[in-house]
Amino acid sequence: MTHSRPGHQFLHSPGPTHVPLAVMQAMANQPMDLADPRLNGIIDRVEAGLKRLLNTESANIFLYAANGHGAWEAVISNLIAPGQTVLVPGTGHFSESWAVQTEAMGGHVIRTPWVEGLSIDVAAVERVLREDTEHKIVAVFAVHTDTASSISSDLLALRAVLDAVKHPALFVVDVVASLGASRFSMHEVGANVVLGASQKGLMCPPGLGFAAADARAMAVCEANPTPRFYWDWRLRVSEFSYRKFCGTPPQTLLMGLDAALELIFHEGVDQVLARHQLIKRMVHAAVACWSQGGALHFLASDPASRSASVTAVAVGPGANPEALRTLARERFDVALAGGLGQLAGRVFRIGHMGDINAPMILGCLGGVEAALRVQRVPIGSGALEAAVACLVAG
Amino acid sequence: MTHSRPGHQFLHSPGPTHVPLAVMQAMANQPMDLADPRLNGIIDRVEAGLKRLLNTESANIFLYAANGHGAWEAVISNLIAPGQTVLVPGTGHFSESWAVQTEAMGGHVIRTPWVEGLSIDVAAVERVLREDTEHKIVAVFAVHTDTASSISSDLLALRAVLDAVKHPALFVVDVVASLGASRFSMHEVGANVVLGASQKGLMCPPGLGFAAADARAMAVCEANPTPRFYWDWRLRVSEFSYRKFCGTPPQTLLMGLDAALELIFHEGVDQVLARHQLIKRMVHAAVACWSQGGALHFLASDPASRSASVTAVAVGPGANPEALRTLARERFDVALAGGLGQLAGRVFRIGHMGDINAPMILGCLGGVEAALRVQRVPIGSGALEAAVACLVAG
Amino acid sequence: MTHSRPGHQFLHSPGPTHVPLAVMQAMANQPMDLADPRLNGIIDRVEAGLKRLLNTESANIFLYAANGHGAWEAVISNLIAPGQTVLVPGTGHFSESWAVQTEAMGGHVIRTPWVEGLSIDVAAVERVLREDTEHKIVAVFAVHTDTASSISSDLLALRAVLDAVKHPALFVVDVVASLGASRFSMHEVGANVVLGASQKGLMCPPGLGFAAADARAMAVCEANPTPRFYWDWRLRVSEFSYRKFCGTPPQTLLMGLDAALELIFHEGVDQVLARHQLIKRMVHAAVACWSQGGALHFLASDPASRSASVTAVAVGPGANPEALRTLARERFDVALAGGLGQLAGRVFRIGHMGDINAPMILGCLGGVEAALRVQRVPIGSGALEAAVACLVAG
Amino acid sequence: MTHSRPGHQFLHSPGPTHVPLAVMQAMANQPMDLADPRLNGIIDRVEAGLKRLLNTESANIFLYAANGHGAWEAVISNLIAPGQTVLVPGTGHFSESWAVQTEAMGGHVIRTPWVEGLSIDVAAVERVLREDTEHKIVAVFAVHTDTASSISSDLLALRAVLDAVKHPALFVVDVVASLGASRFSMHEVGANVVLGASQKGLMCPPGLGFAAADARAMAVCEANPTPRFYWDWRLRVSEFSYRKFCGTPPQTLLMGLDAALELIFHEGVDQVLARHQLIKRMVHAAVACWSQGGALHFLASDPASRSASVTAVAVGPGANPEALRTLARERFDVALAGGLGQLAGRVFRIGHMGDINAPMILGCLGGVEAALRVQRVPIGSGALEAAVACLVAG
Repeated sequence: MTHSRPGHQFLHSPGPTHVPLAVMQAMANQPMDLADPRLNGIIDRVEAGLKRLLNTESANIFLYAANGHGAWEAVISNLIAPGQTVLVPGTGHFSESWAVQTEAMGGHVIRTPWVEGLSIDVAAVERVLREDTEHKIVAVFAVHTDTASSISSDLLALRAVLDAVKHPALFVVDVVASLGASRFSMHEVGANVVLGASQKGLMCPPGLGFAAADARAMAVCEANPTPRFYWDWRLRVSEFSYRKFCGTPPQTLLMGLDAALELIFHEGVDQVLARHQLIKRMVHAAVACWSQGGALHFLASDPASRSASVTAVAVGPGANPEALRTLARERFDVALAGGLGQLAGRVFRIGHMGDINAPMILGCLGGVEAALRVQRVPIGSGALEAAVACLVAG
Repeated sequence: MTHSRPGHQFLHSPGPTHVPLAVMQAMANQPMDLADPRLNGIIDRVEAGLKRLLNTESANIFLYAANGHGAWEAVISNLIAPGQTVLVPGTGHFSESWAVQTEAMGGHVIRTPWVEGLSIDVAAVERVLREDTEHKIVAVFAVHTDTASSISSDLLALRAVLDAVKHPALFVVDVVASLGASRFSMHEVGANVVLGASQKGLMCPPGLGFAAADARAMAVCEANPTPRFYWDWRLRVSEFSYRKFCGTPPQTLLMGLDAALELIFHEGVDQVLARHQLIKRMVHAAVACWSQGGALHFLASDPASRSASVTAVAVGPGANPEALRTLARERFDVALAGGLGQLAGRVFRIGHMGDINAPMILGCLGGVEAALRVQRVPIGSGALEAAVACLVAG
Repeated sequence: MTHSRPGHQFLHSPGPTHVPLAVMQAMANQPMDLADPRLNGIIDRVEAGLKRLLNTESANIFLYAANGHGAWEAVISNLIAPGQTVLVPGTGHFSESWAVQTEAMGGHVIRTPWVEGLSIDVAAVERVLREDTEHKIVAVFAVHTDTASSISSDLLALRAVLDAVKHPALFVVDVVASLGASRFSMHEVGANVVLGASQKGLMCPPGLGFAAADARAMAVCEANPTPRFYWDWRLRVSEFSYRKFCGTPPQTLLMGLDAALELIFHEGVDQVLARHQLIKRMVHAAVACWSQGGALHFLASDPASRSASVTAVAVGPGANPEALRTLARERFDVALAGGLGQLAGRVFRIGHMGDINAPMILGCLGGVEAALRVQRVPIGSGALEAAVACLVAG
Repeated sequence: MTHSRPGHQFLHSPGPTHVPLAVMQAMANQPMDLADPRLNGIIDRVEAGLKRLLNTESANIFLYAANGHGAWEAVISNLIAPGQTVLVPGTGHFSESWAVQTEAMGGHVIRTPWVEGLSIDVAAVERVLREDTEHKIVAVFAVHTDTASSISSDLLALRAVLDAVKHPALFVVDVVASLGASRFSMHEVGANVVLGASQKGLMCPPGLGFAAADARAMAVCEANPTPRFYWDWRLRVSEFSYRKFCGTPPQTLLMGLDAALELIFHEGVDQVLARHQLIKRMVHAAVACWSQGGALHFLASDPASRSASVTAVAVGPGANPEALRTLARERFDVALAGGLGQLAGRVFRIGHMGDINAPMILGCLGGVEAALRVQRVPIGSGALEAAVACLVAG
C-alpha cells in the first residue's frame, strides 16, 4: 500500500489526476502478443477517439510511451532543424520550459514576454510575426493552458493573427492541460500540430504522450534532416503497431486511454466540458470568498483567462504554500500543487479536471480551508457555502 | 460499470460503507482449495483479529456467509429453545426487527418500549428483570447502536442492572453498527454473546456475519434442543474450515475482512475511534447549523446518545427525505439512507463510519446541503464552515 | 499476498474454481445504498439469468448469502416440517450429508444405498416410492452431481419413476456441482425445487447460494409451520431487496454473479457445455492412460456417469492422495481435492469446471503427472499426448 | 473486456509477459501529487532494486517512460556524437535494429556479421578492435540475449577481448531480454552502460525503459555535444523526481516495477534464475522431441547459447508459423511470437520468462503441440512427457 491513511485520498494536483475505476480495470488486463488483433483494435480506437476529441479528421496520431516533455521532444525533433527559429508566446513556466527544450535541441527561440497574471500577449505575437518578413519563424509553439499559471490563452485570436499577417509558420498547440476540460478544436483553431498527455483531463496515469500532425506538418517532418529515430513520424506512419510505437507499444496505458475515451464519449463531450465549468465556478466562488481576507488572490487577473483545469492562488508574504500543501495532504488528505519557476513559494494550485464531481471538489475546498485556517492565513468566510450555491444554481 | 457517473461516488449509507482499496485487492485473490494451509491462516487471523477488536480472550468466534439478520438467526437458534423468553430493550427499528425474528423462531419476547429519540430505557429493563423472579428470561438481546435511530445505548448501564438484579440471563449484544466506530469491549460489558457483520465499521462488503460466544453461552447452546444445522455452534467448533463454516468458507469475504482488520490495527484502534469522533463532531456541527432553519432536527434528543456511526436527521412535514436521497445521489453523487419502520418518510440518515476521512464527510455534507437547498428546505447557514472548524480544532 | 509463489496458481478443486477477471472486476465496484436502483437492476439480472440458465419461466428465485449447505438448510426449513419424511437417493458423500442435515432439522430420511462407483440406484428409488402408498414421502432430495464421487445421476430417469409411480413427492434437485457444466433443465426434469451455489460452474467466489421454487413448492412452503425467518421464502417474496435478502443483500457477490452469468450467455450455454465436454474428454484420456499402470482407476465405473465437473481418481494402497495434493500444490502449483467421507485417503479429485480452457487442464494434468511420478506411483505413459489428441480431435 | 474467451490466456510472447497480480494491484493505486514523499520512496526503491539486480553499486539509474527502443535512443544520444563510431557485434534482428537506429542518430556503425544460429562472433569482434588502433570506436553495443534469435552471447568473453586488446571503448550491454531470467552482473562483465525494459523478465507491462551508467559513461555524456533534452542524463541527475524524469514520472509503471522487484527479491534472485533454468530445460526437452519428426529444429545450434528467456523454433518449408500462432492463440489460448526480420515466416518463438511456473509452460507446450498436430506438421512424440520428466528431475 502506498497510502496507509484511511479513506479516499483527494488528488487535486493538476496532473496526475484521479483515475476512474473503469480505467484502472482496463489496465488490469494482461498484455497481449504483438500480433494479437485485439491490440490493433485498441490502438485503432485510441487513435480514432483522440481524433474525435481533437476534432480533426485527417491528422496523423502519434502515441508515445512518454510524458508531455517527451511529446515536446517529438514535436521539436520532427519539425525543427537545428538553427531554425520558433516563436514561443509567453504563458508562464510551461512556455518557458518548452522554449528552453527547443533551444537545447538546437532551435532558435523568439519569446514574447509573459506578464504574471496575464495570458498570451497577442499583440506582441503579432508584432513579432509582422517583423519576420523573411518568414524565418517556422513554427509558433503555443501552450493552451499553462498548468503553472492556470491561465488559458485565446487560440482563435492567435490563429487570427497568423491569418492576418499571412505568416506561414506552423501553428503548434500544447493541449496537455486543457484537453478534456476546455473546448478545443484542431479544425477551428487551424492547428497544424497538437500535442497532449494522458494524466490530466484524459484521466489516465502519466506515461503516454501524443501528437497529432496535419499534412503540412508531415511535409515539414519529411524534409527535416534532424537525426532522430524514436520520435520520427516518418518511421511511425505504419499499419504495424510495432512500427507505430518504434518497438513494443505501452499496451497497458493504451488500454487505459481506450477506456478513458469511452468514458468521455459515454458522458458526452459537451457534458464533460459543462461539468468542468460547474466545478470551476465552485472553485472560483470559494477562492473569491477567501480572497476577501486580503491574504490570497487569483493569480490570473482576467477572469476570462482562468482555466477550467486548475486554479493558481497567489499568497501573500506571510503564507507558506509548501507548508500548506504538506498540511493539506498529510492531515486533511487533500493533495494540491505548488508554484513552479518564478512562482515557487508564492502560489498553491488546486487541480479540478478529469474524473471529478461536486462532492470531490467540496471535500477538496473544505480541506484547503481547514489548512488555511490552521495556518492562520486571514481568509474571508462563506467559501464553501458559495461553492454550494454555484452547485445549486447548476 | 454499475456507476456511469464521473468521479468518486460518496457512499454515506450506514452500511454498506466505502470499501478501501486494500480490502478490494485482498478480495481479488483467487480462491484456494479447501486444504490449502493459507486458507487456515486467513481464518485464524480473522478470528484472532475479531477477538482482539472485541476485547475477548476466550470467546469462540463463529463466522457465517450471512448478513446481520443471519447472525441474529444464528444466535436465536443456538440460544433460545421454542417457548423460551427473551427480553429485547427497545432501541428502534432494529430491536423491534430482532424481536420479531425471535418470535418467528418460536421464542417469547418481552419488549421495553422505545420512545422516539431516546436510547434504551434502563429503568424499564431493570423493572422487567426484577419482576422476573422465576428467571424465565433466558437472554437480554441488546442493540448497541440502532442503525435506524442512530442512537447508541449504554451497555455498561445494562450490565450494571443485570448485576444489581442478579439476573442470570445471557447478555447478548448486537454490535453490527458500532464495532469499529464506537468503543466496545466484550470483557468490560460482560457480554456472553456478541454479533456483528462485515459491511459497516469493518469496511467490507456485506455478506459476512459473525458471533462470539463465551463459555456460558456455549453451555446454553449445548443444552438447546432446537433443530438446527447450518447455524449450529456445536458442529462449528472444529479445526477444519469445512466444518467451521458448515461447508465451503466464503473465502473472498474472509480475505477482505483479514485485510480490513489489518488496516484497523495498523491505524490503531484508538486512532480509529478518535477519527470517528472527529467525523461525528463535524456532522453534528453541520446538522446543528441546518437545524437553526427550523425544518430539521437531530432524531436523537440526547447528544450523548448520538452514535459515532450514523446520524438520523428528522425532517418536518414539508420535506421529502426520499426525494432528497434521490436528488443527493443522482445529481450530487452522495448516497444517503432513509427512514425505516415508523421513521419511514420522516428522516434521512448520514452514514459516517468505516473507511472515512475529513474531505469525504465534507463532500457528503456539501452534497446534502445542496440537495436541501434545491428542495428549498429552510436551513441555517454556516454548516460547512462549522464542520471545518471542528476539523481545525482537531 | 496470499500466494507468494510465482506464476498462475492452477486451482483444480471442484469448487471453489478459478474466478475470471470480469467477475473479479465486477466485485471491485463499491457497494451502493440499498435504495439505489442500480442494485435492483443487478438483482433483477441475476434472477433472470439464473432462471434462463435453469430453464424455468415461473419459479421464484431466492438468493442467500450462504454456501451450498445454507441452500440445503433453506430448502429443508421451507419444505419439511419436523417429522415429515424425505427420500434421499444415495449418490455419495453429499447425498449422505444432505440426509444428515435433514435429520438434524427434524426430518425423517429414507435413503437408498450408494454403491461406491455407481450413480443413483433408480430401481431402488422406484421400490421405495412404490412402497410408500400413503405418500408419507413429501420430497425426493436428489444430488445431480455428487462432488465427492464425481458421479452424475440420471435426473430424467428419476422423473420417469416419480411419474410412473404417480408419487406426489416434491422433486428437489441439488445442481451445486453441475450447473454451468452439465446440461440441466428444471422444466425438462420437472423439478419443483432446484438449489445451487456460486463457487463451481458459476465461476464466482463461494458465499452465495440460491434456490428456485415452483408453485407447488411455494404452496408447501406456505403451509409449513416450521419456525424460520432468515430462510423463509414467504418473507422473501418481495419487490424490496432488503426483504428479498432478509436484510442487506451481499452486493459484491451479486455483482460477481451478474458478470459471471453475462460471461456464460456471451459465450453461449451450448458452447459452455461443449467446452466442458471437451475438457472432460481430455481428463478422461489422461486418467485412462495413467490407469494402465495399475495403481489408479476412475472411481466412477460407468463412463456415462462421470461428471463434466470433476473426476475422482481412486488410488491403490501404496499411494497417498493427501501427500500427492500437497506435492502438487506446493511444488507444482496445481491444487487438487481429496477424498471425503468414506473416500478419505483413497481418492484424489481433479476439478475441471467453470472458467477453464485447454492449456489450463493440460497444465493441471502435467502437474498431476509430475506429482505421481515423484511419488513413484506406477502410471501408464502417454497421458498428456492422449489429452492433446482429444483437443486436436475437437 | 479485451479477451472474451474463457479461462486464463497463456501469454508466451517473449515480451510482454504475464504480469503478476501483485504488480497489477500495485498499479491500481491512484497517482500522487509530485511532491508526495511516497513517490520519492517508490523511485528510490526502484533505483536501488535495479542496482541490486544489475549488481552495481555506483552506476546512475535513469528511468524513462519508453520501451527498449527508447532506452536505445537514450544511450545513443547521450554517448555518441554525430560521426562517432560504434561497434555492434551481430546477434540477430536486435543488434541490427540497434545499429540502424545508431546510424539514424548520426553514428557510424561497424558490424560483425551474424551467422544464423550462432551467438556473437567473439573472434570477429577482437579483429575489429585490434584493427582500430586509433580507437575511433567509442563504444561496443552488445545485445546480451537477442529476443529474435533467442540466442544469448558470452559477455565475459567480450569483456576479455576488450581487456586483451586494451581498447578503451565503452562496453554497453542491452539486457532487455535477459534481466531477471539469466545471470547478469554489471560489475563482473565490466559494463559501462546497461539498458533494459520493463516488459520481459521484470514482469511489468511495457512502457518503462532504463539505463544504468557508470562514471566513465557519465564523463562521455558530459562531453557529448549532441543536442538532446528528454533523454539527457546531465539534466536527469537530480534529487527531484520531476527532473529525474524530465517532467511527470510514469508513476503507475513505477509502482508496478517496485512491486515486481519486491517479488524477485522475495523469491530470491538465485531461485528466480534456477526457476528459469528449469522451465528452459522443459521447453528444450519438448522441442527436442518434436524435432525428431524432422520438420522443426532449434534455431540456436549451440545448446549453450540458447537463452533462458525464449526459444526460437525454426520450421521447414511446409509449415506456416504465422498460421500456427493464430491457431494456437485463437483456438488453444496460447499466444506465441513469430519470426522477425530475416527470420519472418521461418520461426515461431516460445517466450518462457518472467512470472512463469511449471504448469504454465506445460499448458503452453500442450497448446503448441495441439496446434502443430492440427497443422499436420510432422513432430516426434513424447514431448510433454519429456518436459514433465525434467520437472520431476527438478
